Formats: sequence, structure tokens, C-alpha cells
Amino acid sequence: PRAREAGVIVGILPTGPLNAITDVAGVAVGHVTIIRGDDVRTGVTAILPHTGNIFREKVPGAVFVGNGFGKLTGSTQVAELGEIETPIILTSTLSVPRAADAVLDYVLSLPGNEDVQSVNPLVAETNDGLLNDIRGRYIAREDVLTAIRNARGGPVEEGAVGAGTGTVAFGFKGGIGTASRRLPPNLGGYTVGVLVQTNFGGVLTINGAPVGLELGQHYLRDELRKGAARRTDSSASAAMADDPADGSVIIVIATDAPVDARNLRRLAARAMMGLARTGAAGTNGSGDYAIAFSTAPEVRINMDRARAARYAPLPTKLLSNEAMSPLFLAVIEATEEAIYNSLFRATTMTGRGRTVEALPIERTLEILRRHDALGKRDAR
Amino acid sequence: PRAREAGVIVGILPTGPLNAITDVAGVAVGHVTIIRGDDVRTGVTAILPHTGNIFREKVPGAVFVGNGFGKLTGSTQVAELGEIETPIILTSTLSVPRAADAVLDYVLSLPGNEDVQSVNPLVAETNDGLLNDIRGRYIAREDVLTAIRNARGGPVEEGAVGAGTGTVAFGFKGGIGTASRRLPPNLGGYTVGVLVQTNFGGVLTINGAPVGLELGQHYLRDELRKGAARRTDSSASAAMADDPADGSVIIVIATDAPVDARNLRRLAARAMMGLARTGAAGTNGSGDYAIAFSTAPEVRINMDRARAARYAPLPTKLLSNEAMSPLFLAVIEATEEAIYNSLFRATTMTGRGRTVEALPIERTLEILRRHDALGKRDAR
Amino acid sequence: PRAREAGVIVGILPTGPLNAITDVAGVAVGHVTIIRGDDVRTGVTAILPHTGNIFREKVPGAVFVGNGFGKLTGSTQVAELGEIETPIILTSTLSVPRAADAVLDYVLSLPGNEDVQSVNPLVAETNDGLLNDIRGRYIAREDVLTAIRNARGGPVEEGAVGAGTGTVAFGFKGGIGTASRRLPPNLGGYTVGVLVQTNFGGVLTINGAPVGLELGQHYLRDELRKGAARRTDSSASAAMADDPADGSVIIVIATDAPVDARNLRRLAARAMMGLARTGAAGTNGSGDYAIAFSTAPEVRINMDRARAARYAPLPTKLLSNEAMSPLFLAVIEATEEAIYNSLFRATTMTGRGRTVEALPIERTLEILRRHDALGKRDAR
Amino acid sequence: PRAREAGVIVGILPTGPLNAITDVAGVAVGHVTIIRGDDVRTGVTAILPHTGNIFREKVPGAVFVGNGFGKLTGSTQVAELGEIETPIILTSTLSVPRAADAVLDYVLSLPGNEDVQSVNPLVAETNDGLLNDIRGRYIAREDVLTAIRNARGGPVEEGAVGAGTGTVAFGFKGGIGTASRRLPPNLGGYTVGVLVQTNFGGVLTINGAPVGLELGQHYLRDELRKGAARRTDSSASAAMADDPADGSVIIVIATDAPVDARNLRRLAARAMMGLARTGAAGTNGSGDYAIAFSTAPEVRINMDRARAARYAPLPTKLLSNEAMSPLFLAVIEATEEAIYNSLFRATTMTGRGRTVEALPIERTLEILRRHDALGKRDAR
Repeated sequence: PRAREAGVIVGILPTGPLNAITDVAGVAVGHVTIIRGDDVRTGVTAILPHTGNIFREKVPGAVFVGNGFGKLTGSTQVAELGEIETPIILTSTLSVPRAADAVLDYVLSLPGNEDVQSVNPLVAETNDGLLNDIRGRYIAREDVLTAIRNARGGPVEEGAVGAGTGTVAFGFKGGIGTASRRLPPNLGGYTVGVLVQTNFGGVLTINGAPVGLELGQHYLRDELRKGAARRTDSSASAAMADDPADGSVIIVIATDAPVDARNLRRLAARAMMGLARTGAAGTNGSGDYAIAFSTAPEVRINMDRARAARYAPLPTKLLSNEAMSPLFLAVIEATEEAIYNSLFRATTMTGRGRTVEALPIERTLEILRRHDALGKRDAR
Repeated sequence: PRAREAGVIVGILPTGPLNAITDVAGVAVGHVTIIRGDDVRTGVTAILPHTGNIFREKVPGAVFVGNGFGKLTGSTQVAELGEIETPIILTSTLSVPRAADAVLDYVLSLPGNEDVQSVNPLVAETNDGLLNDIRGRYIAREDVLTAIRNARGGPVEEGAVGAGTGTVAFGFKGGIGTASRRLPPNLGGYTVGVLVQTNFGGVLTINGAPVGLELGQHYLRDELRKGAARRTDSSASAAMADDPADGSVIIVIATDAPVDARNLRRLAARAMMGLARTGAAGTNGSGDYAIAFSTAPEVRINMDRARAARYAPLPTKLLSNEAMSPLFLAVIEATEEAIYNSLFRATTMTGRGRTVEALPIERTLEILRRHDALGKRDAR
Repeated sequence: PRAREAGVIVGILPTGPLNAITDVAGVAVGHVTIIRGDDVRTGVTAILPHTGNIFREKVPGAVFVGNGFGKLTGSTQVAELGEIETPIILTSTLSVPRAADAVLDYVLSLPGNEDVQSVNPLVAETNDGLLNDIRGRYIAREDVLTAIRNARGGPVEEGAVGAGTGTVAFGFKGGIGTASRRLPPNLGGYTVGVLVQTNFGGVLTINGAPVGLELGQHYLRDELRKGAARRTDSSASAAMADDPADGSVIIVIATDAPVDARNLRRLAARAMMGLARTGAAGTNGSGDYAIAFSTAPEVRINMDRARAARYAPLPTKLLSNEAMSPLFLAVIEATEEAIYNSLFRATTMTGRGRTVEALPIERTLEILRRHDALGKRDAR
Repeated sequence: PRAREAGVIVGILPTGPLNAITDVAGVAVGHVTIIRGDDVRTGVTAILPHTGNIFREKVPGAVFVGNGFGKLTGSTQVAELGEIETPIILTSTLSVPRAADAVLDYVLSLPGNEDVQSVNPLVAETNDGLLNDIRGRYIAREDVLTAIRNARGGPVEEGAVGAGTGTVAFGFKGGIGTASRRLPPNLGGYTVGVLVQTNFGGVLTINGAPVGLELGQHYLRDELRKGAARRTDSSASAAMADDPADGSVIIVIATDAPVDARNLRRLAARAMMGLARTGAAGTNGSGDYAIAFSTAPEVRINMDRARAARYAPLPTKLLSNEAMSPLFLAVIEATEEAIYNSLFRATTMTGRGRTVEALPIERTLEILRRHDALGKRDAR
């Protein structure tokens, strides 16, 4: 089940109808899941701010770097120009270059882009090397193009799919998760949608309940045991710990609120707060990034209009700084819930001779019940 | 009681002996609390990385800006040079300049500083204007000097003292809190201490339990009520909501780990994750800053030694990036616990005709019990 | 003479009518020059983006840190919110806190600000300690208020006035300089004005001519002399070299182009390129900052309008990224010329028993003539 | 000739013996130049901090973003960890992904890297689309591997080679240039080497002489002509102006000074000052990046040593902040001279039916002579 279906009600704001990033109108998501033989467990996830020609109709965007041990490509241009001009691609660490090259194929071949000579692919990644033969770089050009072509609105597949196929979170099978918040009209009525690719560690809490501790699966468990002279664990978690590239999380945030790049960066920064609420430990080796964009028509950057205007200003409409606060909370809540969804929807996966178990839902719910962490939480 | 005395065991790492920033050897803290008449509720807190001449024996340091709606002074030089050269002062927003001027008095008058012509005071602030006649700027030069002179190791006074005298957190009385973590020898044996000045909003959770919700006191409570056409609340919380400068939190982090400015900045960034775990909403108006420094002798910047060396390199010793991870978790946990301590230790305060209640400890513990959030949390 | 009057034609863009920051309509500048006895040589310069209530009618703004060895206060809030809400004050390093406190006095006392509890003074500085008894902190509250009150449009006094009273640039008397550029209509017709406070070192070039070298006055002159076992110079330049706080430059940029904070930051970054063209050496001890703001009515942040709009977006008009390029060049050129003006207009100053000579204009012009660096430069 | 051979003596510091980045011991440079048919004019340049296994023996490094309109990949990890772990590759904009993928091939296949699962390729770029069929992405995997294999110390080929094969600077043929500075012993004796890939615009000055103006070739020339209602120019410069991706410059800085990542970033920032001195206009469309690293053995990050140390600090030696100043000037001067070398050594190139002329050396020297800009510049 999704977390909410199982009774995990995160935060105080209402969700959108799908409780997914696609509640932000126009946003499309596509996955390609690659499972082959014993050792290939990887994939691609594409998030499209809109389904038109994104290069010609750019969206304001921002990248926030929570911890930069990662290979995300495209960040400096997004920071400088405040624009996103390609689909956002998530994939396996060592496949970033090939995915970026495929994005070039996609953009260069779009009608209207015949003269384009400069494109900034925005590709983020996470290390699925525990379950996947990552050095094999199995993501092919066609996989990326298919993920983009597959992208659509509506419900989003979660769990061990797309870029989340081979990932591990809190020692359990992680993957793709999504969630959304829709502000009531008196707070602006805007929607915020989040999609995550989870592959990090920590001490899992769910709605505050100490799930990781009670399941005996968490960061530094072995090191903190009495008399722990040295780690002797040979489990998957130990294998991870030996790998300096011990994961990462990519958080993609969409909103229909008319917000510029500066405030989108602030929005993205809040995603780290949602991440923190799940018990993430923020380790050195985790590449933690948030990418935010606005789909509001009034903030789009239409290249033809910009060129035509030349040195004349273009009209736009923007929320004030003060109006951002409820959106900030929406990001925090949706990020937290999206991470839970990535765990709740993931299934046990075996690869490279290792098995990473899915979060044991029944035992987890039992823990949540013991901590009165299920159901609507309200004033008593 | 402090949170831990009441049974709130945050995280998985052991505390230092005092569970305070002063567990980091050499760190000293001093408060001056100013309560006068009906309207003056303010103060100063000084944190000294060491009790020598900090200007001549600088410590590596970093400032992380979680949300820059604040008047912290001194950040650009700390970022550029990676050094802290004065006591760190916390105080009331509009008193930052006078406090900074007093820091100049202090540094300029220290023996050995007779020729000093340039000093970078590091003064952070929070807005205590709800309970305090902030426009009156009642912090005097002598108050700052007294706080510095008062500074000592040992137990740290918490709650409505020093810079926390007039602050409000989660709608309850906030203030000063502190906590620490001491890593076991197999993780390096280093100590991390945190001191916070709390004055922000959100939806309070304590060890994951939904305290704010169950007490009916949280951010957006009124706006989210059914049929909430407009806010009609006239409580303190409403007064705050009308004030765009709606608070802030300053988090000061000390460690004896030999860490350079770059890794101290990363350490400081993790403080925001501890903040997030308490339910902070990250609102626009909250100035959220973390300041980190190392007291390790091998990373000190001794001006005379640096001058003597001129163009020759100076020996130092530094932890690797990978060795940072347990320290990151220590910051997260100590920050979370320090915030709880600021609430648990604060007492009801009246000022400017308004009363901000202390967190109701009994009801809070009841909620924590219901959510099984007290006592040692461990595998079951 | 001003540089241009002496034949120094910098760059290719036309100036505004005054060749001053005040060519940007509404911008006002005020100086207070403090010369007392033998040892006090300091002052204050105030730049007002407009002469209304800046707190209630904020302007978009940005601070770019070229080298952060400086005590500029207010930068984190400007970066976060993209707004400037006070006059910009330039003064002596150790007087920043008192100047900031005076700015609070000013803002808090303005009609309409009776309820204001949070103000972000933007005060930048430079170290005038070579000629001025800087430790005496002679800038009084009233001096700052007078500089603000004195501020007006029209011609701007340059040289050893205001915050430039005691400064030294390239070993000569520096001070305040200003210049402007007005883009032709086919490039948008916007005006860019720059005001500088110069107090840094390097190897002075003027319009490319090696003035510092030929006058035998430049950074590292003594160290580079053959057989230079150690520096034995006892001149002012040597005194400076011994001071780790060896100066700084503050560059204030105004434009009437409708530009948001992100593009203002980019504009500010280009000021460092103008600085570089004068031969600045970018030394460790020089605090080099640029502050940029836009006066365009369509980008103002009116607090009352923002509050009234609450969660609805506000209309604005903005230049595209591509339209910025001519403005970038305008900043580079105006900064370079403003620095020359600060030197050309400064007069020899004695303080603390030291004399810093003005740039010897006749010898300088001779050098410029020899290098064919005077008069209109154009295709041949 | 190289600029210095032609009499252009930049700055006041002495050069290294080769006046090249390879004056920094151990640094190696390799080019692959790709010229095919009428439309392929591109290439690859590889810079190796040392010729060992860079992944296992990382060097401290930093990336400074002067203007982020560029596709440089790898920057966030360098910023976070302060390390460079691969050869630095320069190439054509749209070939960055394929070049990055080839770097992965290289690193993954090195002996000792059999278990590596995460690599951060550092690939920078510039747009050679004016002369090169950039959309064809003609850089093959083997080209990148060959450039790395070709890399060696000693003299560096300059001009229209490697990544500079198809680039244009100031309207003339640009390309690869290099230069160095060696500080005298009393300033530390360190060497700084710079290599540039030039592809940007502005108003060229050489040693301060207005070469671009006098040759009638510069940014905004047509727009600024009297009565310029609109641009009607159909030259290469016009073609460029129509392309929003109008170039960039990549500046790679090597030093043997023992400097950490923070001070390397400061070093890199100064490269923009050297760039500015050549008349660069800092336009929106120019992606201007500087990458700096130190080769000093005492600051290397040896993975095996770091792993072995685990939570114990590792000894290192570092220059103080104050010791950086002469290195800063060295970067400024070497960058300026490297850019001149890129122009002086480039040859006229035809591609895609367009011809970009080399800088006319004779006319240029004539201009330099008229401005007395040749030969040793010294006090008179």
C-alpha cells in the first residue's frame, strides 16, 4: 500500500487528488525499469515540467545541493539563468553521461530546435551499485528516450521502478516515491508535488515512530554495539558502509505557484527538512539534491517571446517572499511522505548475489500502532 | 526538567557528561538576562570557543545560512577566511549593532591587541519583539561585556535566559537550550556540542510525537480550520503571524574534532536537519543560521605563528571527508535535543502585555507516553 | 579634474549627463567628512536608492562578495530575500556597528514605520586606519543621519570625502569616485551608475597604461627588487603591507533597468571585472564587495501592496537574461572609470603622522600620453 | 609567436621556464585536434594534475563559476569534497556527456580501480558551433582517451588545437593558451600555471592597448554606430551575436603551493580578474569557469591512507590565508598572458563556410608599439 493508505498521515496539509507530483497540472513522469539476468537492476525516470518543447518554453528552476557528493549535471547553468530547459532525468551514477547525451538527442531532434547549439541537460543520479552492475552502464540511449516518451500525467508508479530499481534506503529496498500537497484557497490554493529517488541511510522514523531502531536496522548499529571493537557485519548494510559512495537522494519538486528561481531555490532547500524528518543521517557519501520548478504560465520563459522583446522587459507575476511560507511547509510534508511511499511501495530485490528486503509492512505498521502514529493526528 | 531527565532520549549516540556545548573542552558560555518593568525581556548570550585571546588564536569556523531572513553580522569574512576571531554573541535583532560594537570594545582592549585595526564580530540574533520592547534596544555595551566575562565551562543555564529571555518557539516559550554527543572511540571519540536560541514556528513534534497537534498549538492552525475565511485569532501566535520577522533560530556548534572550515560548514548544514526533526516549518520570516567551529589545537590559527611562517606552510592535522559522517549525525541529534531543552527549561513569560506560556510539561509527557516516545528506544 | 575631463575615455559606452551614480533617476548620495586634529580622517557616505521610505518601498538588490575579508553587514538577508530596505552606508571598518545602529534610528523613526521590529541595515566599510585613528571609532550617530539627510541627486563630490576621507588606493590617496553609462535606445536605453570607495592595492593601470609601474609605486615592488632579502621600506605602503586588513573596495551599482535580484547579483559580479582593469591585485586582505539595486518602479517591493496581495501574485516586468549583456559591460566600464575618478579627485592627506600623496596628475597624464591612452579611442 | 616572444610582457612577476601550466611539476597536457571535411573543427584537451592514478591519489581542487551559462560537469562534488579525482577534460559543448563517459572508461579501467562504483568526471566546455558542426558531436570515446594518453609535461601546444580548434575570441580565432608565474623565494617560490580555452567576446585590449577598438572588431561595434537603428551585419561576429550560447572561457589553474580547497577556490576567483584585463565583456551567454588544483604532495588525498586512518586525523601542511596574496597576483597575470597566447598562437580557420581570421599579429604589434605596450615595463 502507499503510506497514506496504510494509515500514515503526514503533516497537516491536504494532499492533491493523486497525492503525486502529477497533481501539478502538466507535469509528466515516465519510467524505464531495467532488470536483466542476475546483475542488472537499474533504470531511468524522466520528469517533464510540461509536455511541450521545454527548450523553447523553459520553466524557472533551481537546484539545491544538500550534500554535493553526487554527479548531478546541469546545476551551474540552472543557478545562473534560473531556467530548466530539458526533461529532468534520474538514473544510475555511472550512467549520467550517457543519459545526458540521450537528452541532447531528444532536445536536438525536437521540431523547432533545428538550430539549437547549446543545451543544458539536467540529469541527477544515485548509486545503485549494491544490487546493480553499475560499472556496466546498462542504461542505453533508447531507455532514456523511452522514459521521456512514456512520461504522462496521472498516477505515478512507485517503488523499485525506473531510477529506483536498484536503490536502498535505510537498509531496506528504496526506490521512487511521490506525494503532493494542495494549499487551501485562503493560502493561495497552489499545488506542490514531490518525487523522490531514495538511496540513503540513517535511522528510519515514520511519522516519528522509531521504525529503524525497533527493526534493528539503522546507521551505525554495529559500531554502537557494546564492545564493538570493529565491524564484522557482512550484510548488505556493511557492503554499503564500505562504499564511500553510499547513496543519495534526489528530490524533484513541482509547483503551479508563480515563483521565480530565487524562491524556487528556497523551496528546494526545504526539501532537506522533509528528508530529515525521516531519519536521514546526512552522511558524507550521500549525494542529496533537490530540484524545483514552477509550471505557472506567467513565469515561463518563452524563447521566441524573449528574443522578440530584446531589451524590453517582459510582464510576469510573482508571489511575494511572505507568500512562500505555506509552500515551504507543503514541500517539507510532501517530501517526507514521498520517501515513505518509496519504501512502502518497494519490493524485495535481489541482484549481484545480494538481497535487499522491502520494508516489512506488517511489522512496521505494528510499530506505528504502538506509537500511535497511524490515522489522523489532531488536537485532543 | 531537561528533556532527557524527563525521559526524552533523542537519537542513538551517547551524550557528553554535561549534555551541553561545554562538553567540548574549553568552550565557555555566559548569559546576561535583562528583565525590567513590563516591557523589557531580552538578553545576551556569549559563546567563547576558548577563553584565551580568540583574535590572536583564531579557530576555524563556518556559518551556514538555512534561511537568511536575519541580521547575523560577520558571515562573509568567516566564509572567506574560514576563521572565527571573536566570541560569538547572540542577542535581540535590533541590538545586533550595539552588541557588535561592544565586541569591538572587548577585542580592542585585550592585551596583545593594541595594534589591531580590523575585527570581525560574529553576532547573531533573533526577534524577541513579541515580549520585549525591541525598538528600545535595551542591550547595553556593559551587558555584552558582562556576558563575555561571565562565560565559563560547566553546566549551561537554559530556558528564558540570555538571548532567549524573550523568545517564542512553536507558540510556547522558547529560549536557550544545549546538548552534546560524544562519539565512541571506534568512531573517533570526538565531542560535538550544540547551543540553540529558539524563536521559530512549526508543528512541534518531540521525539516524533505530535505534541503541537495534540496541544492544538501550531503553525497554520487557524488557516486550516474548516470554513476559515480569515484569521480572527488574537493570541500571541496571531500577533507573531502578522509580523513578517517571525522569528529565527541560531544554532552554535562546537567540536573538538580537527576539522577545517569546509567540513565545519558541512557540519553546520546538518544542524538544519536536527531543526527539521522538531517540526520547524522553515517559514519565510525565520532567520535560521548555524555557526560551527573546532577547538582542536592542531587546527587553530595562531596569528603570530602564521605571520612568522610568512610564505611557508604550517603543519596541521585534519579528518578526512569520510570521517565526518558520525559527526554529522551527532550534530543532528544534539540540535534536536538542544531545541527540546530550550522548551523544557523555559518558563512562562509576560511582557508587553502578552503572556507566552511554557510548554505544559505534564501534558506533553502524557502525549509522549501515549506515543511511546519516552525512555530508551531500541530494537525489540 | 575628473578622469574624463583629463582625457581618460574609458570603454565604448556613452556616459549619463553627470557621469555619476545619480544619473539613475531618484538615487541620492550624501557625505559627511570628518577631519579633526592630527589623527581623525574618516567619514560616512550614504547612497539612497530613492528618497522615499525605503523600508516600505524596498528595491530589489544583491551583494556580490569578491573577497570577503570585510565587515559588510546585511548580506545574508539581501541574498535570501533579494531586497534592500535601508540606505546603503559606507564607512570606516570599526565604525560599522555604530553606523548600523544609526541606520536603525533612521528607519525606526520614519513615519509609517512605527510598528517595525526588524530592519536589515546594509553597511559596508573599508579600513582607513593608515591615516585615521580607526580604533577611536569617531563616526557618531549624528554623522550617519546627516549623511542620509544630506543625500541628494545631482553631481557627487568625489575624492577624499565621506567614507573615502582616509582611504588609500594603489599607494596613492583614494576615496570616493563615481561614473555612469547610458545605453543607447537600441540596447534598451537604461542607465547604470556606479559609486566606489577605493582602498586597495595592486599595480595601477589607467586605460591600460602602466601608471603604477612607471611611477614606481605598486604592490610587491620591494619584494621583487633584485636581492630583496627582506623588506626595509618604511613608507606608507610598507605600513599597509604589514596590516593584514590591507584595504578593500566597495562598489555600489544603481540601475533603472527592471532587473530582479538574481540578475542584479550577476550585474554586481561584473563590477569585479571593472576593478580588475585598474590593476587591482585581489589580495587576501582586501574586502571587495559590490552592491547592486534597481530603481525601476515595476520591480519595487511595496510592503503594503505585498501584504494586501497575501497569496496572490503581483505583476512585475523583468528583462530577460539575454538583455543583460550590455548592462554587464556598462557596469565594467563605469566601475573602472569611477575608480579612476576616486584617484583623480583625491587630494594629498596627512593623518597619524603619515602623508599619502594624491596621484600626481601631471606625471600621470604624461604617462598616459606616452601610451596614447588619452582621448577618444577608436578604430584607425 | 607567443605573446612574450613578440614583446608583450604581462605584469610584474617572473614566468616559469616554459611559461606554461606544465611548469608546475607533474602536470601533463594532451590534445586531440579533430579537423574533418568542411564542417568538423573540434577537439579535446586533457589536463592531468599528475600522471598517477588520480582517483586513488586525489588532489584538492575547486571550481569557480564566473558566469554559469555552461555545461561544466562535476562541480557540485568538487565544491562539497574539495577534491578532483579525474583528468580535467575540455571539449565542445554538446560533447560533454560523451567525454564524461570516456573519462569513466578511463578511470574504471585503471589498475587498482576494479571496485570503483562512483567517479566524478570533471569536464568543461565551450561552444565551437560557429566553425564546427557541433550538433554532430564528433568527439569519440577514443579521442578523449587519446588526449589523456597523450598528456605529458614540457611545452604545450597552443592556438587552434585540442578543445580550442573551433573557438573564437574577441572576433578572432581563439583557442588554447598557457602561461605561468614563479614566485621568487622570498614570496614562497611557488609556481602557478594556467591553461585557457578562449571563446568569448569583448573589447580586446593587450597589455592595456586598445587592440579591438583600433582593429575595428569588438562587442557592440555595430549597435553603437551612429544611427544604428538595427544590426545589419552578416559577419561571423553577427552570427555569434545571434547565438545566445555565445561562447565561454575555461581557465585551468595548477599550483605546487600547498593550498586547500577553500584557498584554491579563492585562487580560481582571481582568474576572472585576469580575464577582465583582456577586455572580456562578461556577456550573459559566456560560460566562464575557473578550475584550480594543487599538486603539492602534502595536500594530496590518498584514498588508501584516508581509509586506513578512518577516524584519525591525517597530517598536512597548508599556507595561511595571508600567504595567498602573491599567488593571487600570479593567477591574474598568468591568466591574462595565457589568453594572449591563445590569440597569438591561433591560426585562421575556416569551417561551416565561415572563416575566422587569426589576430593580425603585425597590425597588433603596431598598435602595441604605438601605445608603448611592448617590452619590459618598469619605473621611469
